[in-house]
Amino acid sequence: MRFPEIKWRAVGAQLLMLLALGTVGSAIRNKGCYTPDWPSLDSRPLPEWFDKAKFGVFVHWGVYSVPSWGSEWFWWHWKGQGAPQYQSFMQNNYPPDFSYADFAPQFTAHFFNPDEWADLFLAAGAKYVVLTAKHHEGFTNWPSPRSWNWNSKDVGPHRDLVGDLGTAIRKRNIRYGLYYSLLEWFHPLYLHDKKNGFKTQYFVTAKSIPELYDLVNRYKPDLIWSDGDWESSDTYWNSTGFLSWLYNVSPVKSEVVVNDRWGVNCSCHHGGYYNCEDKFKPSSLPGHKWEMCSSIDKLSWGYRRDIVMSDIADEAEIISELVQTVSMGGNYLLNIGPTKDGLIVPVFQERLLAVGKWLRINGEAIYASKPWRMQSEKNTSLCYTSKGSTVYAIFLHWPDNGVLSLKSPQATSTTQIMMLGIQKDLKWSTSPSEGLLIYLPQLSPSAFPVEFGWTIKMTGVK
Amino acid sequence: MRFPEIKWRAVGAQLLMLLALGTVGSAIRNKGCYTPDWPSLDSRPLPEWFDKAKFGVFVHWGVYSVPSWGSEWFWWHWKGQGAPQYQSFMQNNYPPDFSYADFAPQFTAHFFNPDEWADLFLAAGAKYVVLTAKHHEGFTNWPSPRSWNWNSKDVGPHRDLVGDLGTAIRKRNIRYGLYYSLLEWFHPLYLHDKKNGFKTQYFVTAKSIPELYDLVNRYKPDLIWSDGDWESSDTYWNSTGFLSWLYNVSPVKSEVVVNDRWGVNCSCHHGGYYNCEDKFKPSSLPGHKWEMCSSIDKLSWGYRRDIVMSDIADEAEIISELVQTVSMGGNYLLNIGPTKDGLIVPVFQERLLAVGKWLRINGEAIYASKPWRMQSEKNTSLCYTSKGSTVYAIFLHWPDNGVLSLKSPQATSTTQIMMLGIQKDLKWSTSPSEGLLIYLPQLSPSAFPVEFGWTIKMTGVK
Amino acid sequence: MRFPEIKWRAVGAQLLMLLALGTVGSAIRNKGCYTPDWPSLDSRPLPEWFDKAKFGVFVHWGVYSVPSWGSEWFWWHWKGQGAPQYQSFMQNNYPPDFSYADFAPQFTAHFFNPDEWADLFLAAGAKYVVLTAKHHEGFTNWPSPRSWNWNSKDVGPHRDLVGDLGTAIRKRNIRYGLYYSLLEWFHPLYLHDKKNGFKTQYFVTAKSIPELYDLVNRYKPDLIWSDGDWESSDTYWNSTGFLSWLYNVSPVKSEVVVNDRWGVNCSCHHGGYYNCEDKFKPSSLPGHKWEMCSSIDKLSWGYRRDIVMSDIADEAEIISELVQTVSMGGNYLLNIGPTKDGLIVPVFQERLLAVGKWLRINGEAIYASKPWRMQSEKNTSLCYTSKGSTVYAIFLHWPDNGVLSLKSPQATSTTQIMMLGIQKDLKWSTSPSEGLLIYLPQLSPSAFPVEFGWTIKMTGVK
Amino acid sequence: MRFPEIKWRAVGAQLLMLLALGTVGSAIRNKGCYTPDWPSLDSRPLPEWFDKAKFGVFVHWGVYSVPSWGSEWFWWHWKGQGAPQYQSFMQNNYPPDFSYADFAPQFTAHFFNPDEWADLFLAAGAKYVVLTAKHHEGFTNWPSPRSWNWNSKDVGPHRDLVGDLGTAIRKRNIRYGLYYSLLEWFHPLYLHDKKNGFKTQYFVTAKSIPELYDLVNRYKPDLIWSDGDWESSDTYWNSTGFLSWLYNVSPVKSEVVVNDRWGVNCSCHHGGYYNCEDKFKPSSLPGHKWEMCSSIDKLSWGYRRDIVMSDIADEAEIISELVQTVSMGGNYLLNIGPTKDGLIVPVFQERLLAVGKWLRINGEAIYASKPWRMQSEKNTSLCYTSKGSTVYAIFLHWPDNGVLSLKSPQATSTTQIMMLGIQKDLKWSTSPSEGLLIYLPQLSPSAFPVEFGWTIKMTGVK
Repeated sequence: MRFPEIKWRAVGAQLLMLLALGTVGSAIRNKGCYTPDWPSLDSRPLPEWFDKAKFGVFVHWGVYSVPSWGSEWFWWHWKGQGAPQYQSFMQNNYPPDFSYADFAPQFTAHFFNPDEWADLFLAAGAKYVVLTAKHHEGFTNWPSPRSWNWNSKDVGPHRDLVGDLGTAIRKRNIRYGLYYSLLEWFHPLYLHDKKNGFKTQYFVTAKSIPELYDLVNRYKPDLIWSDGDWESSDTYWNSTGFLSWLYNVSPVKSEVVVNDRWGVNCSCHHGGYYNCEDKFKPSSLPGHKWEMCSSIDKLSWGYRRDIVMSDIADEAEIISELVQTVSMGGNYLLNIGPTKDGLIVPVFQERLLAVGKWLRINGEAIYASKPWRMQSEKNTSLCYTSKGSTVYAIFLHWPDNGVLSLKSPQATSTTQIMMLGIQKDLKWSTSPSEGLLIYLPQLSPSAFPVEFGWTIKMTGVK
Repeated sequence: MRFPEIKWRAVGAQLLMLLALGTVGSAIRNKGCYTPDWPSLDSRPLPEWFDKAKFGVFVHWGVYSVPSWGSEWFWWHWKGQGAPQYQSFMQNNYPPDFSYADFAPQFTAHFFNPDEWADLFLAAGAKYVVLTAKHHEGFTNWPSPRSWNWNSKDVGPHRDLVGDLGTAIRKRNIRYGLYYSLLEWFHPLYLHDKKNGFKTQYFVTAKSIPELYDLVNRYKPDLIWSDGDWESSDTYWNSTGFLSWLYNVSPVKSEVVVNDRWGVNCSCHHGGYYNCEDKFKPSSLPGHKWEMCSSIDKLSWGYRRDIVMSDIADEAEIISELVQTVSMGGNYLLNIGPTKDGLIVPVFQERLLAVGKWLRINGEAIYASKPWRMQSEKNTSLCYTSKGSTVYAIFLHWPDNGVLSLKSPQATSTTQIMMLGIQKDLKWSTSPSEGLLIYLPQLSPSAFPVEFGWTIKMTGVK
Repeated sequence: MRFPEIKWRAVGAQLLMLLALGTVGSAIRNKGCYTPDWPSLDSRPLPEWFDKAKFGVFVHWGVYSVPSWGSEWFWWHWKGQGAPQYQSFMQNNYPPDFSYADFAPQFTAHFFNPDEWADLFLAAGAKYVVLTAKHHEGFTNWPSPRSWNWNSKDVGPHRDLVGDLGTAIRKRNIRYGLYYSLLEWFHPLYLHDKKNGFKTQYFVTAKSIPELYDLVNRYKPDLIWSDGDWESSDTYWNSTGFLSWLYNVSPVKSEVVVNDRWGVNCSCHHGGYYNCEDKFKPSSLPGHKWEMCSSIDKLSWGYRRDIVMSDIADEAEIISELVQTVSMGGNYLLNIGPTKDGLIVPVFQERLLAVGKWLRINGEAIYASKPWRMQSEKNTSLCYTSKGSTVYAIFLHWPDNGVLSLKSPQATSTTQIMMLGIQKDLKWSTSPSEGLLIYLPQLSPSAFPVEFGWTIKMTGVK
Repeated sequence: MRFPEIKWRAVGAQLLMLLALGTVGSAIRNKGCYTPDWPSLDSRPLPEWFDKAKFGVFVHWGVYSVPSWGSEWFWWHWKGQGAPQYQSFMQNNYPPDFSYADFAPQFTAHFFNPDEWADLFLAAGAKYVVLTAKHHEGFTNWPSPRSWNWNSKDVGPHRDLVGDLGTAIRKRNIRYGLYYSLLEWFHPLYLHDKKNGFKTQYFVTAKSIPELYDLVNRYKPDLIWSDGDWESSDTYWNSTGFLSWLYNVSPVKSEVVVNDRWGVNCSCHHGGYYNCEDKFKPSSLPGHKWEMCSSIDKLSWGYRRDIVMSDIADEAEIISELVQTVSMGGNYLLNIGPTKDGLIVPVFQERLLAVGKWLRINGEAIYASKPWRMQSEKNTSLCYTSKGSTVYAIFLHWPDNGVLSLKSPQATSTTQIMMLGIQKDLKWSTSPSEGLLIYLPQLSPSAFPVEFGWTIKMTGVK
């Protein structure tokens, strides 16, 4: 494209300036209080609901659900990197000039029943659900006017996936978040800006910013899960401009939560809560609210047909991650990838239902909990949470001798100890070397409240 | 079809007579000893391997795996019965004149890896595997010369599924059986015979009998699982003629096992072992070797995309069925339906692996076992099996008080009792009213040898 | 296939013998008079309608109409010969394991309107139409019970093409013929017989003979255009058996016409009329009724998308072939290949309509004509036909001087000469050296009765 | 979409103002001379090549070539109007939720050989070729960065059709024009502007103007054939802004020609040459250069599979239109619609070649000709053209008496008369009542230079 660039760039810059400071800006000043810079934006308190929620479900769904092979990065591995196994896969299964766009008509979502999904997420105990509104492939799961014929209404599902799922989710009082990738691997305007060292903003002006506004105005999301920011600065993405509008003016200004992926060097430093890198596991208690996202399929976020059992996190691994994350003050966002026809395969249903079953017994120690002064006991798989003066110890391995030893809590005269899911108090004693010794109940296999991750509830401890 | 029927019918009858009694017959007399009648055929002893095997995996795979909706009877419900929900399904998802045959090209089997399947079946503890060589739809999973362009070599997978799976199965010393439906719902020659009150045998002469010969000669199956016999007599099907050839002449004459579906009134009365009806559960010990076939998907044998967790047998249900079946002298054939692209979805892998894990501990009480003099204890979920003088009691519910009471076995001075999976002997006593009282071990959750279906091994009891 | 061959072969032979001589034979003797041998069959007079018809339309339509590239021998060139350009074509346009059978669902015939076709053939002046009921690919254009799921009712068009076209053709009093290929390149039973040196007849017994009976009984064709006979003898094909039934017993015994392709050495020697080789052009007047088949697309009988103008016979070439053929006592069968969606492309419509327009003026010299004592004049492109004592001279090049010289006819006192399409008599004279000199009319371009192939009608000549 | 509209609109307007008058404008003033208003733009002389060319080929090719039914307005009739026959067509042939975008992958262009097309157009005598770069459907036949995944590079052909054809056309010294529809029936930004009464310009800013710049910069077209202007004003389209850039600055500023469809009330009044309405036929000699576009398929510009002969203009109709158009000072742009696989069907080849054959004889009277003082003779089908002092009379009906009577030309002493394609002078005389009487040659059918539309060349007449 040999477009008269210099002038357009100038105009583009001016346009963004106007947006940020000019006419738009004056509207902002009248209604809100956040200026488009990080110090101001970072000062906004995180809406309360998010920290209380603790557990959410993440949904990666897009055109990559059609090949459903490799991962949701299919297109990039195939065409961006030219990975041999992806090229073979295409050569073995498709006609020679089949393109990624040719997958889209097969993304039928024929069996997509948003109420069934929402029922499942409810049964799983999720307090929020985050759907990929658009992944790096650029395909929008809503009828974006800026993505004509590359969205779920025009091709493939022929419906508004973002809208339909949102309606079902909210009927059940679950919070609804939207994942949005800033970058699009192969969008020609993005590639053009990239070639220009991100000194032009054709893509941002014509695509990403209008879409973010559209998403917010249409669907009023409780959470915006930004991603794909890493190739350019927040200035290029116009992130602070967008966030100031979001916080000051937008219809969700009071309740909306965002993450931290808004440009190079933003992650783990700016924005709302922090994701830091994917599957982030801090080694000590972070000073800022964070979220750990993880996937039941350990090797992919999008659905892969050829998944095998060893790639799938089992119930114990999932509960373990959840417990460790919450004990460290994080939220746990557990991902599933639906199929191209809109189904969540049984093994994912099974895992989610297992989490729900576990939370029905142990949720008291999770939802709305706070980290305790200690997060775990050294050399054990035991984690603490707290709520007010109550302390919860969740242990992942049942001691062979039936006696659980806790070094951190100090018993008092009012100490009472029980196990969640069992109606009676447990016996305990103290020992100079072992600390608090709790005598676990002797049970037949079916009498254990859960199969893994038992919670000791303690009151009157210090 | 207005074919000169009378002459052909006469010829056809003569042809079959020749086959049965003439030249072919004389060949038979020279080599074998079974005459083509039930008294003779039923007198053949069942080859030993079958009773010892106890546990097999059943695989339903065919063109119905493409819609993978409803069940493997899709075509019949849609076109035979005209069921409204099937008609809607087609109207909502396919062009108006889409036919069942149009599904076949989508039966790609692209990911079919017979060695991975076989490894899974081996890990599941299966001693035999039965694949649908042809279901009622008539599509053959091998290149049958009598089913040109309606077989897995000419369309869809473009490979010999029967052959490829067989090779992998046998590499692991698992026995290989083939399911074969005699009838084909919509085969024009079959419909023609049916219209003639089964007085003509165009279909049998041109299709079913040549295919049975071809299957046996090509793949040398250890087991023929006949089905679809119910609309006509064994005379129409020429069943005794085929079986006498199979027993006397065929390359598998010494080891082959067959079931009992060879014509109206044969099931539960004639043939090899008995299946009786699907999912048959006898109320008392049968006098004839039998097999119970069951499916992990409780509502279908073929794969259904829209399966939900509540349709799926859980591990406890499966182990329970297996144990009850074996205690009653039966074999247990557990079905899975692979996808159109040749994958066994994770939840089925998981169930099969769970059976395998259970059998690695408890297989001693299953494989090559015999029914004991009692099969169960009244009002309990406890079952007996035996091997020589050893008696096995498999109990499905762990008594709350930790004491298992067995009324039937009588202790002697040499009685020794242990639990499979645990290295040491269990304590026991006797009580006039409760019989043998066995003191189960006190264990932490992870120390139980299995989660469900524990086996007590007793020697020196009567 | 290791089928018990010897016995079956014996039975097969006996079966055919029975058909030919036994019960079937006795039925024949009661009703007809032709024995199943060439001397008897060849003695049957050709039903009159055929010689009178002179002009027919040939229609090649099948699964090859889907790739519609190369020719109707697509499958053979691709898979039989492995021709590189066919392999490239497939590699460039289809997924790797796409088979010929996979083309069939795209043979939609969506626009097929038999009445429009029949109107076109009527307007073309055709007195008979021959449709490929089955070509060498084996796909039957009618619901053959012997070709389940490889016929136009089960897949692709989902309708009875042979029946539907037949109804439309006959409404317009046009005769209806069916092309039937005896061989099928890739039918497994045929390949089996071939491997056996055609000493077995599995294919003939199970496929070709039942289908020929079915075709005759269902559609009562006026003509059977046999083909694909060349790899084996008439004994293998059981041709004389079929023909004796056709002539003695069948519902079309009095009117049916057949050609001469019934086994090696039959063509040009036995059967009904002779085709000899494709596009046969005899050098002198044949002693036996014959037919010349030709195709508007000079390089293919089936439709090719990539046809270019230079491959298409123009009007003059077609008229010229028609005239030469009829003057030599032949019928002219002109072929078109419809598209996979059931359309006859405009250029073929145009050619057929041009023939019809020509015949509306000149048909008097064609239909029901007989060869004259001379068929042409040496070194000219002029041909003769006759009807009773009337002689027709059809000249293809208009003499520059406007005087047509005919050496063969001898004028008499009653000689009258005119041009078909022009109302008045022409002047003529005789010359010792030039013979009969006819003074052609001086006309403006639009006044010529036809643009090519003008007919001089002469009465009272010798 | 609840976008912050007022501000954007203001910015949009400013942006366009900047483009027209600001920085961009100053660049324009330095290089060119046309201001962005009609008086200035209309004053530009039409580049000479266009009037001399006289005959061009128009090519309508797009996603509508896939259904190839109805016309290129398929989408509009189906979804815009909801025409019942289009809805039936879709219901009868496609799955229920098949969308127009789903056609795109079938637009394969597999057989597209630009050199063959260009050879054909050359043989047809075309001096320019106009391809639809984008029709009202919005699909771009080049990789437009503003039409990601809805262009011929990303889906369907997977190639740059505009570029590939252009290269082939120019190799043969044929001028290359691009048709571009300003509106897109269903583009969401266009619909948004329309809903706003065209007071916003989201679509123009984001789509049409950047694409026009891109087309010109990339392909340097000799002609821009604008269309789809009729719903809004030239102000909305920013037409004068674009044209001033095109005439002053663009790489084709000296040679480019445009038509007159640049907004409501522009057609027949402003721009380059005039098209006025489609298939325009003026009744008297227009005072401004014009072009008549016509289509061989009289009912459609895009390819229709179900075309019948009566819909196809015959050679005489085409020549007649060409001759009448040129005699009235117009250019004749004759349209063909290629198939989805990139072929020009034989009947279109045939018509184009017929024009070429005619022009090889009569082109002298067409190319670079000027209208004569009279354009035709009353009550005749005779037309005049001229070149210098030579006058050409092209007559469409040959007089029965062989004498052509011309009332307008006046013979002089130097008058010479001949027929193009015939080497010798014709005799002539004058008559008070009949004017110039020309004695046409007496010819045999094959001696006529053409079959229709003969040209009399006269020198020395007044």
